[in-house]
Amino acid sequence: MNDIGVVHRNITRAARADVDVLAPFGVSTLHEAMGRTGLMRPYIRPVYPGAALCGTAVTVLLQPGDNWMLHVAAEQLRQGDVLVAACTTECEDGFFGELLATSVRAQGGAGLVIDGGCRDIAALEEMDFPVFSRAVNAKGTVKATPGSVNIPVVCANALVRPGDVVVADVDGVVVVPAERAGEVAEEAARREANEEDKRRRFAAGELGLDMYAMREPLAAAGLTYID
Amino acid sequence: MNDIGVVHRNITRAARADVDVLAPFGVSTLHEAMGRTGLMRPYIRPVYPGAALCGTAVTVLLQPGDNWMLHVAAEQLRQGDVLVAACTTECEDGFFGELLATSVRAQGGAGLVIDGGCRDIAALEEMDFPVFSRAVNAKGTVKATPGSVNIPVVCANALVRPGDVVVADVDGVVVVPAERAGEVAEEAARREANEEDKRRRFAAGELGLDMYAMREPLAAAGLTYID
Amino acid sequence: MNDIGVVHRNITRAARADVDVLAPFGVSTLHEAMGRTGLMRPYIRPVYPGAALCGTAVTVLLQPGDNWMLHVAAEQLRQGDVLVAACTTECEDGFFGELLATSVRAQGGAGLVIDGGCRDIAALEEMDFPVFSRAVNAKGTVKATPGSVNIPVVCANALVRPGDVVVADVDGVVVVPAERAGEVAEEAARREANEEDKRRRFAAGELGLDMYAMREPLAAAGLTYID
Amino acid sequence: MNDIGVVHRNITRAARADVDVLAPFGVSTLHEAMGRTGLMRPYIRPVYPGAALCGTAVTVLLQPGDNWMLHVAAEQLRQGDVLVAACTTECEDGFFGELLATSVRAQGGAGLVIDGGCRDIAALEEMDFPVFSRAVNAKGTVKATPGSVNIPVVCANALVRPGDVVVADVDGVVVVPAERAGEVAEEAARREANEEDKRRRFAAGELGLDMYAMREPLAAAGLTYID
Amino acid sequence: MNDIGVVHRNITRAARADVDVLAPFGVSTLHEAMGRTGLMRPYIRPVYPGAALCGTAVTVLLQPGDNWMLHVAAEQLRQGDVLVAACTTECEDGFFGELLATSVRAQGGAGLVIDGGCRDIAALEEMDFPVFSRAVNAKGTVKATPGSVNIPVVCANALVRPGDVVVADVDGVVVVPAERAGEVAEEAARREANEEDKRRRFAAGELGLDMYAMREPLAAAGLTYID
Amino acid sequence: MNDIGVVHRNITRAARADVDVLAPFGVSTLHEAMGRTGLMRPYIRPVYPGAALCGTAVTVLLQPGDNWMLHVAAEQLRQGDVLVAACTTECEDGFFGELLATSVRAQGGAGLVIDGGCRDIAALEEMDFPVFSRAVNAKGTVKATPGSVNIPVVCANALVRPGDVVVADVDGVVVVPAERAGEVAEEAARREANEEDKRRRFAAGELGLDMYAMREPLAAAGLTYID
Repeated sequence: MNDIGVVHRNITRAARADVDVLAPFGVSTLHEAMGRTGLMRPYIRPVYPGAALCGTAVTVLLQPGDNWMLHVAAEQLRQGDVLVAACTTECEDGFFGELLATSVRAQGGAGLVIDGGCRDIAALEEMDFPVFSRAVNAKGTVKATPGSVNIPVVCANALVRPGDVVVADVDGVVVVPAERAGEVAEEAARREANEEDKRRRFAAGELGLDMYAMREPLAAAGLTYID
Repeated sequence: MNDIGVVHRNITRAARADVDVLAPFGVSTLHEAMGRTGLMRPYIRPVYPGAALCGTAVTVLLQPGDNWMLHVAAEQLRQGDVLVAACTTECEDGFFGELLATSVRAQGGAGLVIDGGCRDIAALEEMDFPVFSRAVNAKGTVKATPGSVNIPVVCANALVRPGDVVVADVDGVVVVPAERAGEVAEEAARREANEEDKRRRFAAGELGLDMYAMREPLAAAGLTYID
Repeated sequence: MNDIGVVHRNITRAARADVDVLAPFGVSTLHEAMGRTGLMRPYIRPVYPGAALCGTAVTVLLQPGDNWMLHVAAEQLRQGDVLVAACTTECEDGFFGELLATSVRAQGGAGLVIDGGCRDIAALEEMDFPVFSRAVNAKGTVKATPGSVNIPVVCANALVRPGDVVVADVDGVVVVPAERAGEVAEEAARREANEEDKRRRFAAGELGLDMYAMREPLAAAGLTYID
Repeated sequence: MNDIGVVHRNITRAARADVDVLAPFGVSTLHEAMGRTGLMRPYIRPVYPGAALCGTAVTVLLQPGDNWMLHVAAEQLRQGDVLVAACTTECEDGFFGELLATSVRAQGGAGLVIDGGCRDIAALEEMDFPVFSRAVNAKGTVKATPGSVNIPVVCANALVRPGDVVVADVDGVVVVPAERAGEVAEEAARREANEEDKRRRFAAGELGLDMYAMREPLAAAGLTYID
Repeated sequence: MNDIGVVHRNITRAARADVDVLAPFGVSTLHEAMGRTGLMRPYIRPVYPGAALCGTAVTVLLQPGDNWMLHVAAEQLRQGDVLVAACTTECEDGFFGELLATSVRAQGGAGLVIDGGCRDIAALEEMDFPVFSRAVNAKGTVKATPGSVNIPVVCANALVRPGDVVVADVDGVVVVPAERAGEVAEEAARREANEEDKRRRFAAGELGLDMYAMREPLAAAGLTYID
Repeated sequence: MNDIGVVHRNITRAARADVDVLAPFGVSTLHEAMGRTGLMRPYIRPVYPGAALCGTAVTVLLQPGDNWMLHVAAEQLRQGDVLVAACTTECEDGFFGELLATSVRAQGGAGLVIDGGCRDIAALEEMDFPVFSRAVNAKGTVKATPGSVNIPVVCANALVRPGDVVVADVDGVVVVPAERAGEVAEEAARREANEEDKRRRFAAGELGLDMYAMREPLAAAGLTYID
């Protein structure tokens, strides 16, 4: 009757080529290229400086204080997947650490985004295994209650479907629907090209007021200068 | 009838010499030198390790999700100014990023303090453009509704008037009223000299209880020792 | 009638040998070795990267905005002690900074855990004086109202008795009761040995599902696979 | 390319009969009947005591500080609909007040769930127009930037599709997918019948330990009684 | 050198007539009448249902955990004043309770707005002494360290100068500068008259889309309807 | 090796007579009578207006998302006991509702204090079964992992031992150690008598400055009056 307690073995991943074209772009650029959509809430942060990831989502729905489903999910990973773990409630326990990271990497996993806590940060940094979490927390978890794997989940207020592309860096985490990966990459490339020109002009002293022709609309909106 | 929608072109900045004498001091020292006043709330944090700034404030009042006024403010900058951006409400959107940083620097701006979000953190760190913000957030903003530039603003619970000196480092952000910059610098220098002596005595094993003659007032306040 | 305003001079510290055997273990391991108990809330964070400490607790009960008792506590320190400072209420003021760190170190103190704020972060990092706090905050404090030293305190939701062993690293802060230090160290060693084997097997591709024989209990709990 | 800036005029609402059978049940019961799914985060609270609602969702995606789309959504309402307003970012501005409530009611709307702020609380209570919000906030909003109406939205971490049934009372807010409304109502009825019997037995002094046969599994899980 | 430790005995209060004309208006209306300025952060809430106040501000700057200045401020009250208490740092202690309320009322005070905690809520409700605070907290405070009375303060992110009009109700707290009280009252009256007409039209089924002529600008902004 | 998984059947409760003398006092008075100690953090709030309780603690240590131990604890209740439930981590799930309240009441329990969530608020209010919790949350819980009953717990940062007296009202929750109940009641009575006199004098217009002879110490502390 509901979607707790199921594991979907077959999911449709975004094409590898599409993931590869998205990988070079930063999260902010991709978010803009998607029309300012797709972001997780900003409380999800990298657990060490420089952490970054890009891959196809294997989704997990956790129960509070219980990391059983992460082991279940590990078996479903393919090369280049990223685990995206939501929880049925807000919980900052340390669901994930060095041993699971070792397993996930061995199964081909490229990283983890978790709306929960993470531990063994020093080891994760040494392994350079990227994790984006809502907390660092040593608190251990049990293996007692099923959740699900590879169902659509809401993680940090963003909808993530299995196979979607997830990109994370210091600016945050963005989810690109699998079917839009190609067009988003194109738009991102357009924006970057465009930004290069703007950067040069800004550096040369041109003002945004002039570059974007803002003076007239600002006056129309009532902005007044006082000397 | 109110102060939304105005840009003051002429402001009285703290004297450059006064800014220069304040610059070497840390935020904690300046805060103490001001009689323990002038601090912003501690949720304003540097966006990369080592970020620091000292300059005269060009103030901005933003609308939520709208960074139009940052472009307006860029035109008002002079060499050594710091943008201080408040918002009419609590909003953690990514109002500021690499392109605006490029523009602000080209106009002479030395950094940004913002009661809002910031993005393009990797680029800002590479540029060493110091930003102190309440969040890191990729979320983009629009340019639709006027706020103000160079009016007194309340930023992270501190009053900032255009031209005041703003100093920020890893300990936080402090605002020194323009007219008090000279005396604050003097007091800060006195404190630092004084602290050097205390540091030496503490390192040699002298206790604060003795250095500050606390034993008697502690006993008077009722402190009891139990063996 | 109550325990505000007292300093206990004689406390029973965990044996130095026990502290020494605990020191090499990480916080997550020790927490697990204690049956998943003893952790402080995860909002207590290191004030600079790489900060870590292990020592016997000299406890402090602070009043809000008042660091008088830290000076009182400094006199009670012995080599290898760690200050653990709770507060009678939630307060993020900067109770502790460079001068106190200099004094604490000179008295033999190995670091500080504080359910409050801390400042002079750059200097603390340079000294490599480890502090774990709930905030970084330049806000200065007064010396006006007694608290206590070396009474049992609740710090970040964990009970800490004078003489208990406190261990802190990037994963958080754990408190090991003095009388359990030996057994905890033994259990931690067992776990680490055990984890080494698991790490090797995970790296070789073995799944947690098989290593921990989870498939049967998962099926019993109703987990269903869908192709 | 994305779903900002669109209004879907035709949506498939849960059948009125299904809404009517769900209406008598409380949020906690419906959440249990759905296998413990469908809840919004608990920060969404009624703005006055006794507020409650049950209806089919007309969804709204707001921009921060901008309530334009609520006026657009009003036109899409039919008798018995409930507005469910998400925002592209976290914003607690007062997007909704007495005038909009008057309009929504006139269009047949039965209430509002908003991941944002609300104002005119006294008037809303007098009208008995139920609102569930994340904040009470007088802060006014603009009408400048399009969002969307009747797209799937994530509101307070729950996915809401246009036409889903939304039920809210003092316990929180639950979303019942349109296609599951019938079965959920049946399961809820079963649970209530079942609970009536349990309530009677509990009141008569029977213990949950016996009613649910917990003693054996507790012992198996290692629970130990100490006299 | 700074403004800690001073009491200003003579302040310029808004005219009683101006206060009286402001009193009938709600906080949301006054905030709009001021061009959407003047609000405190929404975390300041009434401590009992129905609490409301309107009066001229006697400002207080408190030290954390210390309510000494509230007694100092009581002497400065005149009939119709409201205490507005900021704190040099974030502190939720119970600075204020029944005895102080009795004293404040006896001195002519009409209520309290405090960026801190409050206690004796049941007694305050029975007295109908309105308090707006950031927390309810039984925690007691000391009388040890001076703050100030009748200096400009920042309370919950709003600037309040002695003599300004402060209005609070269930929607929040708004500050009307003394010199603007007359014009704000006029504008508020205009808005209310205007709203009455709108309310009637909304109730009759007219849409905001038509009343405010939004259809054209929405189309110009790119909003698209999909059937 | 640790205290997870145990139930202590025999605890030493505060004498009934001592509980009875404490019951008439408010939380703020008792907290003051204990020298300003014993309070839980103020985030624990009554779930309906007017909720209040006073009784001897039967303590519970919960696991996140798991309310098994509440059923175990129900069996340990005697007439006049209060359940005090801590959790091994921060969790706002709805651990407790109407059925458990029915059972607890039938076993003699007088109420619940829980560092977690609670649901069925309308029913609890109708039953007048007092609950003080950190959240209202419909989220259901499992029965899978043992915690403990009647061990010392830290609940909302306060240490509670089985048998201690717990008193809760709108001002918060205070814990009176069993062995101190008698003296605390005496001191509370003294304070109330004393406050009655102060209330009368305040109401008659006497200032705290005079009643407490504060003028001299304020001047000594440097407070300056400016005309």
